[in-house]
Amino acid sequence: MNGAESLVRTLVGGGVTVSFTNPGTSEMHFVAALDRVDGMRCVLCLHENVATGAADAYYRMTGTPGSTLLHLGPGLANGLANLHNLKRARSGVVNIVGEHATYHRQYDAPLTSDIEGIAGSMSHWVKTSVSAADVAVDGAAAITAASQPPGQIATLILPADTAWTEGTGPAPVEAAAAPAKVAEAAVEAAAKAIAAGGRPMILLGTDGVREKAAALASRIAEKTGARILGQTSVARMERGAGRVPLERLPYPVDGALAATKGITHLILVGTTAPVAFFAYPNKPSLLYPADAEVITLATPAEDAVDALERLAERVGASKTAPKLTAPGVPDLPKGALTPETIAAVVSHLMPENAIVVDESVTTGRGFFPYSFGAPQHDWLQLTGGAIGEGLPLAVGAAVACPDRKVVSLQADGSGMYSLQALWTMAREKLDVVVCIWANRAYAILKHELANVGAENPGRKAHDMLSLGDPDLDWVSLARGMGVEATRVDTAERFADAFASASRRKGPFLIEVLC
Amino acid sequence: MNGAESLVRTLVGGGVTVSFTNPGTSEMHFVAALDRVDGMRCVLCLHENVATGAADAYYRMTGTPGSTLLHLGPGLANGLANLHNLKRARSGVVNIVGEHATYHRQYDAPLTSDIEGIAGSMSHWVKTSVSAADVAVDGAAAITAASQPPGQIATLILPADTAWTEGTGPAPVEAAAAPAKVAEAAVEAAAKAIAAGGRPMILLGTDGVREKAAALASRIAEKTGARILGQTSVARMERGAGRVPLERLPYPVDGALAATKGITHLILVGTTAPVAFFAYPNKPSLLYPADAEVITLATPAEDAVDALERLAERVGASKTAPKLTAPGVPDLPKGALTPETIAAVVSHLMPENAIVVDESVTTGRGFFPYSFGAPQHDWLQLTGGAIGEGLPLAVGAAVACPDRKVVSLQADGSGMYSLQALWTMAREKLDVVVCIWANRAYAILKHELANVGAENPGRKAHDMLSLGDPDLDWVSLARGMGVEATRVDTAERFADAFASASRRKGPFLIEVLC
Repeated sequence: MNGAESLVRTLVGGGVTVSFTNPGTSEMHFVAALDRVDGMRCVLCLHENVATGAADAYYRMTGTPGSTLLHLGPGLANGLANLHNLKRARSGVVNIVGEHATYHRQYDAPLTSDIEGIAGSMSHWVKTSVSAADVAVDGAAAITAASQPPGQIATLILPADTAWTEGTGPAPVEAAAAPAKVAEAAVEAAAKAIAAGGRPMILLGTDGVREKAAALASRIAEKTGARILGQTSVARMERGAGRVPLERLPYPVDGALAATKGITHLILVGTTAPVAFFAYPNKPSLLYPADAEVITLATPAEDAVDALERLAERVGASKTAPKLTAPGVPDLPKGALTPETIAAVVSHLMPENAIVVDESVTTGRGFFPYSFGAPQHDWLQLTGGAIGEGLPLAVGAAVACPDRKVVSLQADGSGMYSLQALWTMAREKLDVVVCIWANRAYAILKHELANVGAENPGRKAHDMLSLGDPDLDWVSLARGMGVEATRVDTAERFADAFASASRRKGPFLIEVLC
Repeated sequence: MNGAESLVRTLVGGGVTVSFTNPGTSEMHFVAALDRVDGMRCVLCLHENVATGAADAYYRMTGTPGSTLLHLGPGLANGLANLHNLKRARSGVVNIVGEHATYHRQYDAPLTSDIEGIAGSMSHWVKTSVSAADVAVDGAAAITAASQPPGQIATLILPADTAWTEGTGPAPVEAAAAPAKVAEAAVEAAAKAIAAGGRPMILLGTDGVREKAAALASRIAEKTGARILGQTSVARMERGAGRVPLERLPYPVDGALAATKGITHLILVGTTAPVAFFAYPNKPSLLYPADAEVITLATPAEDAVDALERLAERVGASKTAPKLTAPGVPDLPKGALTPETIAAVVSHLMPENAIVVDESVTTGRGFFPYSFGAPQHDWLQLTGGAIGEGLPLAVGAAVACPDRKVVSLQADGSGMYSLQALWTMAREKLDVVVCIWANRAYAILKHELANVGAENPGRKAHDMLSLGDPDLDWVSLARGMGVEATRVDTAERFADAFASASRRKGPFLIEVLC
């Protein structure tokens, strides 16, 4: 078998069974091999950033890396922004990037670029195969690298001749290490901080916001009075009725500072010390008191559940009941569409076991409190701040969990970055309800312009932050890509559309004028 | 004035008067400065690859660099693929990329990335300003760098605090050097090659395919019997009735080899020795005979017109008449839409002084012969092979030349990469007729799959190269972004739609089912 086939068989054998693809000429032997080998689901994406964003959600939902297939340096470049988000979500992925044949690179053909350089900016592991005999072994190493806890970006660059030349059989894949247990000293330090008589806070991220870890943290909080909070943007939070009602650290600097005001000890589980998304004149970078002691109980790569179990034991909270939310959702609202009525509709109608993908930006900041008592669901967010991942995440979540409803809560400006994802939803008949918050502006930037002190913007600044003139028509955009859609302008109509979209299978888009 | 304003004033003073923008929080002071300072046209793009592709065409049409405004590493990453194309077109641009405040970077906020690393993969000049006092001088240096012949990519990274802190006044911009004159030895070598009694060919690229250079090359060809040819993908070719009917080296390897078969000397003007876009098993990389002598008369950075004038003089061709095309276009065809009838319609109805942006890929390979005798026009192509630049190029060409009609010849698969450009056409009321060749496939890849020996692809490979199921509906996509559109399925209807779109001002899209 040729190198390409040895790689496909290695991937499938190593548990990498989905390929989010956007291939080109240099990847044709790999495409042909995918065609011959069973076991790999190929999901065509019409832009590479859809592929990488989908791979991110796939990892968040399955815990195993998917793969992408990208066309040389520019194809990789197109997917880089969502690799940034994927990195910040601490997901794993195996990128397969085609390259010119080894002997062809010296000629600097038009599509030649520094692929390793481009990959290096966003990858934990990069390798260019040097011969067909190496491809399978390199592929196995890529899978192992991608699977390192908590998840890594492995980029394997595949020169065309290493794909088409006779290679070896598939290579065995070394299992990734389990997440490391934290040192006893870390548990001790956290326990000491809690016992110090101050105002300790436990900040949770990565696996720390999953059901098991959050319940343990809640036991500790109930027993000791320590406060618990999730990080600002979560990769995957398990929430809803019967789970811990975990708030997140607010995004705006002032809100975050208010949330951490007066804390004396900050205990980190699966996250790092919180820092403002952006610097602002005369505001601090760090989102906690300068004199608070920071204790890392578990890094994102370490076993958060084990660490919290041991901490709970040490503070005598193992038997304490966690604080869990009773079922209960807001009534269906009437009248105007506002962030509050939108949140009430979504929370009231949330399908059982849904996966919510939240790239709501400004519109969605207040959604959380409404849905604490909704049916259990997962909540996925943009972790790296590179907008344009919401729709791709919805693709990946739906591919990963075909039996669950995906609810995509999507701001319009960020949705436009990767609207091609809608086509993949239609092609793959993915079970996604997309809600577009059509405020027709980069609304967050209007706040930010005021934040930086530019109070009364003129026409030119206004135009640079507005999506009007002309208004985007998301119903037409969706139809253009084969996704049924409707537009609503009242809470009642939104509720009707959302309920109806939730009952059916397959993609549906609701443009919510707000 | 703050650093941001000193930079905007430096840019405007240095002749950089357009900004293709997609700003974020870290660029808000720059946005506020753009708002305060006159002289900079701000063109909002809903994806960064639209901004960089537009900047490419802007340079091709004006010869002066425009600027882009991009949001940190991911914003730059999103625009990287068209920077690759821009680099291969040898265009110039000043990228302004926002960055976290200098003191904020140490905290590794979610949007932190290695911006210099990302920029370095596609830039000739990269600098991060270290203080507000440096910003104006750095901006001036960026303009000078971008203006170096034949055009360079200069990326200035602007930490937010260098933008908002009090800076200097604007800095003066050092004029870029004129293109260097070639050494006499190069002219001598070319003349000797022509006189050697073999079969010399002059291959033209960059400025070598503009009117003046092509006419000089034609004089030499008419006088000496040397053949002349344009490079495969041209940044900007001036053509039409009364100009030299310059063919281009074919894209397929076999066609290219046939075109250069038997040549003994290859004289390069504004280009490099031709190489296959991709390697294929058992086909050569170089697209000319192994024993041909390669002579560089002028590199892309050197003065092609001067070099050809001197060569013409030396071979006694200065007074020889160039071979120019007489006016004449094909009749309007009837019936089915084929590459030939499409080409006939476009050529017959080509508006006077149009700018044609050609990302036709497979559908458009045969267009050239039909339009040699059309009214004079410029022909812009994808130079770097990173598909998704056609629509952005149309934006930039229309911004650069508001009094000329832009005709965008666009394949559907590549159009989908950057369809957000349609919105900017609507917002800016750009005078563009977009023709989408809706073959609903990555048709080129179907050929390529066969080329690499994968003859009878199965369902999975077919699906990865098809844009059907569901079909894209470009009329809806255009309407979704505020661009009027129609769909045609016969040559007559295409002609009607094209004629009507050509008569009106503003953007119009025609989906051509083929």
